[in-house]
Amino acid sequence: MSEIAILGAGYMGSAISFPLRANGHGVRLWGTWLDDELVRGCREGRHPRLKKPLPEGVRIYDSTRLEEALDGARAVFFGIASEGFEPVYRKLLEYMDPEVPVFSLTKGFVPLGERLLRTSEAAETLSRERPDARKPRWVSIGGPVKAVELSDGIPTASVYATGDPGLRDSILSFRTPVYRTIPGHDLIGLELCASLKNAYAILLGICDGLYRGEAGRLFDNVKALFLTACVGELATYVRSAGGSDRTVYGLPGMGDLQVTAQSGRNRRFGELIGGGTPANEAYRTMYEAGEIAEGYHAVRHGWEYARMLDPGLPSRLPILSALRGILAEEIPVRKAVDGLVEGYPYR
Amino acid sequence: MSEIAILGAGYMGSAISFPLRANGHGVRLWGTWLDDELVRGCREGRHPRLKKPLPEGVRIYDSTRLEEALDGARAVFFGIASEGFEPVYRKLLEYMDPEVPVFSLTKGFVPLGERLLRTSEAAETLSRERPDARKPRWVSIGGPVKAVELSDGIPTASVYATGDPGLRDSILSFRTPVYRTIPGHDLIGLELCASLKNAYAILLGICDGLYRGEAGRLFDNVKALFLTACVGELATYVRSAGGSDRTVYGLPGMGDLQVTAQSGRNRRFGELIGGGTPANEAYRTMYEAGEIAEGYHAVRHGWEYARMLDPGLPSRLPILSALRGILAEEIPVRKAVDGLVEGYPYR
Repeated sequence: MSEIAILGAGYMGSAISFPLRANGHGVRLWGTWLDDELVRGCREGRHPRLKKPLPEGVRIYDSTRLEEALDGARAVFFGIASEGFEPVYRKLLEYMDPEVPVFSLTKGFVPLGERLLRTSEAAETLSRERPDARKPRWVSIGGPVKAVELSDGIPTASVYATGDPGLRDSILSFRTPVYRTIPGHDLIGLELCASLKNAYAILLGICDGLYRGEAGRLFDNVKALFLTACVGELATYVRSAGGSDRTVYGLPGMGDLQVTAQSGRNRRFGELIGGGTPANEAYRTMYEAGEIAEGYHAVRHGWEYARMLDPGLPSRLPILSALRGILAEEIPVRKAVDGLVEGYPYR
Repeated sequence: MSEIAILGAGYMGSAISFPLRANGHGVRLWGTWLDDELVRGCREGRHPRLKKPLPEGVRIYDSTRLEEALDGARAVFFGIASEGFEPVYRKLLEYMDPEVPVFSLTKGFVPLGERLLRTSEAAETLSRERPDARKPRWVSIGGPVKAVELSDGIPTASVYATGDPGLRDSILSFRTPVYRTIPGHDLIGLELCASLKNAYAILLGICDGLYRGEAGRLFDNVKALFLTACVGELATYVRSAGGSDRTVYGLPGMGDLQVTAQSGRNRRFGELIGGGTPANEAYRTMYEAGEIAEGYHAVRHGWEYARMLDPGLPSRLPILSALRGILAEEIPVRKAVDGLVEGYPYR
């Protein structure tokens, strides 16, 4: 049992406090400068998004008290959205002992200057700027986890990927009978799956928008066709990047895509587009209602990252390419989907 | 364009007539002695299960006219449930030219005497009893296909697995813009997936029964966990039998399990059990309402077939083993599911 600091008081940061406390770890929850409302809610006895009190004994720190939250912590959970990655990680580096491992819940590519990086790449790049240039002890977490369910005690499993075999015992120390942590080592595959599932979930949402309209007809066949095709394309992508198929066919890939495509903002974004709303308008409408469709950026970032890996790779990613065309409003959505069906299988 | 005989006027046999006619093939639809009602409905202008007329030009044959239905046919689609496999295939052998390929829509293991066989194994065994002992030109079809959706023109894809490379052109001749046929050669993997997905779908249904009761809580995390675990276990099974992982991670495995777990009788059967109904009672209740939960038999058959392949295999199939315990009412369902969560990952 040790002291653990969680950075980010949003959905995932707060939810992970439940299994950690259940295992008897000491938990400090630090809110960023965007989390003031959430921190206030927690202090008043109820997390405003999880809609329940945090577990007994979780200590709450507001954004000005990062140093204090980190003092004596033996592990850090990094529950920050990809947009906040750079500023928060830089702050973390100011105060943190480089021996302390970081368990990252961030999903999505991180833009650093002109470059687009996976989370562990971004962390290494930023760590190298420190005087001691020490490589971080980094773990990326992936798998099908809806935060509210995790905090409700619904059985949940996650893969913890790391290049540091010395962290195996820590990873297992977070396990409870209903929260299964699985040590892994495929950072590349896991981080790509975590980022790209938001892109592919848009296609499944588009099917809802296109076919639900046609009253009384079911359309499970086409959704199963595309779920399978998306997982296959994700495998092509991950292999090209040097990651493993097994990750794609496991919890971080198929598992997480399944949950993301079932519900959530990116599915909803796709449904609006499939129903006839132009992509930019759908994004704006959701944004104004406080909902950010991360998949919108994941499509663009995923495509650019693929081109950076190998200029020939995007041509082997027909689904991601079609989504890019739809979001840029260069291809009508019906035409793009019909094209994907007629072109299937793609190899 | 050629003449094709479809045997079996149930859901799948009738639905496959839609893409075949769309491609201009001549189609004869033969109903078994159990299909008299269906044949009558079709003659009166509406298939009673698909709830629509068959495509223009489909010729209907009742059970007494098999020889006529087969006369001049250049291909046979075999749309017979596994219980009817032996008698109908024996009849087919009486009349059919052995050069004519058989495209099988049957799912499930076929009991022959004391033995339990995959469909292509059963066909070969029965063909060997003919005077000429000719191996059949056999193709097994798998993938996520709900028959009503296929007949509605919802985009659908299927893998056609065969050991006979000469059938590639025929397989492609069934393609339409919305029905994608994909030639493959992994008969073992495809037939095991088609049989076992009905077993594994029960577990996903059990989750619905167990967790839906707890009002207002979502449980996508646990369903995604188990979907991934079932696909992983299916891969273990198929590899042990000499089939390919790719089949499991493609349409016949993951794709079909996804659709089967979403809706259908086996999911419903699991939901009843998860909700507290003893397995035998759930089976009987459904049976009396005219609904056969094939998964009930698939669990037992799948387990026995595994033991026959390798006596050590069932111990590497914790989910199938747990389902067997639940259906035999040896393990309470909640205890079995908790055990599967706590034991995850299984290797």
